[in-house]
Amino acid sequence: MYAILDEAFVCHLGITDDAGRPVVLPTTFVRVENTLYVHGSPASRLLRRTKSGIDICVTVTIVDALVLARSAFHHSVNYRSVAVFAKAHEVTDLAEKRIALHALVEHLVPGRTTDCRPPTDQELKSTTVLALDLTEASAKARTGPPIDDDDDLLLDHWAGVVALCETRAAAEPDGDYVLPSYLAAFMSAPTA
Amino acid sequence: MYAILDEAFVCHLGITDDAGRPVVLPTTFVRVENTLYVHGSPASRLLRRTKSGIDICVTVTIVDALVLARSAFHHSVNYRSVAVFAKAHEVTDLAEKRIALHALVEHLVPGRTTDCRPPTDQELKSTTVLALDLTEASAKARTGPPIDDDDDLLLDHWAGVVALCETRAAAEPDGDYVLPSYLAAFMSAPTA
Repeated sequence: MYAILDEAFVCHLGITDDAGRPVVLPTTFVRVENTLYVHGSPASRLLRRTKSGIDICVTVTIVDALVLARSAFHHSVNYRSVAVFAKAHEVTDLAEKRIALHALVEHLVPGRTTDCRPPTDQELKSTTVLALDLTEASAKARTGPPIDDDDDLLLDHWAGVVALCETRAAAEPDGDYVLPSYLAAFMSAPTA
Repeated sequence: MYAILDEAFVCHLGITDDAGRPVVLPTTFVRVENTLYVHGSPASRLLRRTKSGIDICVTVTIVDALVLARSAFHHSVNYRSVAVFAKAHEVTDLAEKRIALHALVEHLVPGRTTDCRPPTDQELKSTTVLALDLTEASAKARTGPPIDDDDDLLLDHWAGVVALCETRAAAEPDGDYVLPSYLAAFMSAPTA
């Protein structure tokens, strides 16, 4: 479960609005030990009414492959997913918030926090961070080749999986910069 | 909005459970004109009680780049996202279900429906498909370089974006197959 959470950059945060309707928003997140810190700013309007203790579901999904079966019915997707169910608490302690934002930046690119200006107290205060306990969470995955009915196995259709891979295509500097070593390592590190 | 929906393979489906809590599940989907068809089987337990007219939110997100600013605070992610809010109706008409599943398979790999066994009526009946009207939907995106505070622009930190790209890494056959032309084209087509 930790491995799935640590590999993805974006989660989908689900909350129930005032009218009881679901709202699902993408946002950034990071795991620190058994806590998931979620950048709550995209949902801050919805969270404002109940900043503490609101029921939340955060789901992280990594798509690994398209599964092409001999039958249309058994077409599928190989994926790994974690759904976390928790009462979200807004982090208000500045020290914990600092730890969370540090981890969020390191989660994007390992080593990055050594190469940027740390947040000021005012910046920390203007960022909404939610903490979710990872106690109630479930992981789901599909792996492997297509599973066809026996009667279909001899059909003359290509069957197998198309592996998908998220690659780091390019580091595009916003100015005249030399690529630092931690970023060069990140660009050439194997991806899932 | 259509372009974002047509590029992704997996959406996150949000529903509210009996206790009023949000549940977010990944599943496959496809857009056909102004309707989003969602493979509802992962959520079928939750949908069973109210198969028709349940409030649902389906969110599709494509992550394009990591945004590395000179300040930790302005780190971000470039993304494109669509959130669809609708009352989901289960598709029960077999003809419409057939159209939806045909589109789902074509959405995975264009041309694929010509190279697999079509679904039987029994297979169609055992698949839960939801239809969502795309009338109430919102698209959000972040693009471009980091936006730093003026005071930070002269800091000696690498700043820019790391472009991410989903590539089709390999077509792994489940047996002794020759790669068909539609699949060869798919493997070599440019990805976002």
